[in-house]
Amino acid sequence: MSRIVLKSVMHKGETCDVLISGRRFSKIGGLKPKDYEKARVVDCAGLAILPPFYNGHCHAAMTLLRGYADDMPLQEWLQNHIWPFEAKMKPKDIEIGSRLAILEMIKSGTVFFSDMYWHREQTMKVVKEMGIRATIGVTFAQGLMSDEGIEANFKFLADRRLESDRVKLAVMPHSPYMVGEELFRRCVKVAEGEGMILHTHLAETKKEVSDCKKQHGCTPVELMDRYGVLGGNFVAAHCVHLSDSDMALMAESCSAVILNPCSNLKLCSGIPKIPKMLESGLLVGIGTDGASSNNNLDMHEEMKLAALLAKATGRADTLPAEEALRMASFNTAIAYGLEGGLISEGFLADALLVDLGNERLNPCHNLVSNWVYSADSSSIHSVICNGEFVMENRHVDGEEDIVREAELCAKRLA
Amino acid sequence: MSRIVLKSVMHKGETCDVLISGRRFSKIGGLKPKDYEKARVVDCAGLAILPPFYNGHCHAAMTLLRGYADDMPLQEWLQNHIWPFEAKMKPKDIEIGSRLAILEMIKSGTVFFSDMYWHREQTMKVVKEMGIRATIGVTFAQGLMSDEGIEANFKFLADRRLESDRVKLAVMPHSPYMVGEELFRRCVKVAEGEGMILHTHLAETKKEVSDCKKQHGCTPVELMDRYGVLGGNFVAAHCVHLSDSDMALMAESCSAVILNPCSNLKLCSGIPKIPKMLESGLLVGIGTDGASSNNNLDMHEEMKLAALLAKATGRADTLPAEEALRMASFNTAIAYGLEGGLISEGFLADALLVDLGNERLNPCHNLVSNWVYSADSSSIHSVICNGEFVMENRHVDGEEDIVREAELCAKRLA
Repeated sequence: MSRIVLKSVMHKGETCDVLISGRRFSKIGGLKPKDYEKARVVDCAGLAILPPFYNGHCHAAMTLLRGYADDMPLQEWLQNHIWPFEAKMKPKDIEIGSRLAILEMIKSGTVFFSDMYWHREQTMKVVKEMGIRATIGVTFAQGLMSDEGIEANFKFLADRRLESDRVKLAVMPHSPYMVGEELFRRCVKVAEGEGMILHTHLAETKKEVSDCKKQHGCTPVELMDRYGVLGGNFVAAHCVHLSDSDMALMAESCSAVILNPCSNLKLCSGIPKIPKMLESGLLVGIGTDGASSNNNLDMHEEMKLAALLAKATGRADTLPAEEALRMASFNTAIAYGLEGGLISEGFLADALLVDLGNERLNPCHNLVSNWVYSADSSSIHSVICNGEFVMENRHVDGEEDIVREAELCAKRLA
Repeated sequence: MSRIVLKSVMHKGETCDVLISGRRFSKIGGLKPKDYEKARVVDCAGLAILPPFYNGHCHAAMTLLRGYADDMPLQEWLQNHIWPFEAKMKPKDIEIGSRLAILEMIKSGTVFFSDMYWHREQTMKVVKEMGIRATIGVTFAQGLMSDEGIEANFKFLADRRLESDRVKLAVMPHSPYMVGEELFRRCVKVAEGEGMILHTHLAETKKEVSDCKKQHGCTPVELMDRYGVLGGNFVAAHCVHLSDSDMALMAESCSAVILNPCSNLKLCSGIPKIPKMLESGLLVGIGTDGASSNNNLDMHEEMKLAALLAKATGRADTLPAEEALRMASFNTAIAYGLEGGLISEGFLADALLVDLGNERLNPCHNLVSNWVYSADSSSIHSVICNGEFVMENRHVDGEEDIVREAELCAKRLA
């Protein structure tokens, strides 16, 4: 088993050594001389170790559409710009777009993402290559898919052959308005049988909620309850427009919510009711959504925005820095069944090393506060995932080629 | 006169050469052979030139209080934490805090700030040293100052001896609740006589507005009108709680508003009504406020947040990327009487060079959209102010010492 010692790293205000054995943290401080034997010892003086980000909802390959169509109403955006572009995307393009996405995520401190998109094989391949984690969706969307496509999805889920230690499949019916009751119930059954996460878009816009009430006589969350979807393996993205009883239903069933505040503001979907969610006891994580509605995959920005919006709609002491960081790391990790997001013995060895000399982390009255409210990606020195460095000293292997290939690919498609 | 040629730089989608003569852009493209004579030619292949940020409202030396007290109600924050810390700050500390602030601003692409704080001589000195611009306030706050202090302020304003090409004084009565009618009228008279900007906090919280109505029978903006404050040299920070008629009054009088959205959300002051401000024809710029309520001086974050909040409270096409960038650059510059914020012949040679190879600026369907919605400071390669490089290839002279000195100073004060 590979062993790494992070030497003289700052952890919760103390300088200590951290031992990583294989894919987990095995000692935080208190190392004995034999712990250093056969270990790679990395000098971390001047660096602090922090939990990395887990991106609870995105559409990775949409990086290719970054900035392609902005500042326009939702329907014009989708129908005249996004869908025609996407229609031209081939599996190879998905691979290129996913690679750019993962590069961007690593550079901004993210070690995991949940992906809802097409051509999942390509994205799975790139995740394996680049060393981070992902839960990759098998996406269901009636109207956009043939019956054969739907059956092929279920076959792919049963097969599971491309999964690995770091890459898991999940069942992802797009939304209650794109997937009907019968198909939703099949999805639930498969997710339960395979022990998989079930992920969907939910209550993103006011229109979705009022349409649902008209059509089904209940809210989208109540509809999910009726279909048997709610439960510990259910993770819902957006949830901007939840009623108090929706929140109670989700909290009681141990369902999780993933906030996507940048996207919700940019597309004029609304401001999530974070203070009420916190009061309800809901498990709340954070995601970025796709790069065509954000327009990046920077979890730090989402974390800060969630903390700010929580205060703006609550009180100045709502969602303090420690809790905002927890949302973007630990909460999102456990929503997806990962023992990550804490720098703690026994946890997955996923971490950031941040540069304590960065001007935005100084002076250092409170590192977590500085990290959440002041820093940006410029302070991220290195990123560790599953016990291995995926970025060291700000550089990711092959990054120039990844960017160049994406630029050429996007030009071809545009 | 010093001459710089930025060679092969990307400008509005075209590669061209840019000539800077002295402190202004003299040619954007179309250079002749003699333009290169006696010029420093800087290879800018792979870089794009963009307008830099002008920070319309901050309290620079408060970087020393970054993260010192977060996530608490306003009164507890001010009375139990901020004011006792500030009471210990000596002129030398202001110098150290201002230096850290300016370093952070340069690294995040800002070439100008408007400062309302104490010990202005120290801040003026550091601005001169570090090569950027500032409008430095002579701050008036009754209750916090003696009558002698107020008279000394007026003497300092009349004297003007520390001003320079890049550093100007302004008259800064703190707010209508900290400065009474008589003193406000004196401030107006001096600002008019000296041709100076008049800057104040205005309509930041609901409480301020309701207190003002109780005490004076009118809104804070109406009170400013009554005092004769409104006009082309008046710049008001915050303005979260303006009525429609407040906006009309300010727009008609050519007064300017500086938004500080991060601070307003974080302190639970509210969400500014950006769509209505835009409709009213008001000149709207952007600022960061101080690092104890933000907690950084990153104008890029403010710009993106303003664009997002404008959409969330308006429509998906409100405040498009180009206009958001204009707010944070040109609008703020002209509010302070500076011919800056545009990469245009005759304008002040203030600019950013951004790295087109940065993953967040790729693919490049639309550079301005990528810059506003996707980038962070990691893509800023160099910063030019007044025809000189203040940062080249991501490095500011002496930055390690500036950070170290600030850390020691804050430890001493905390």
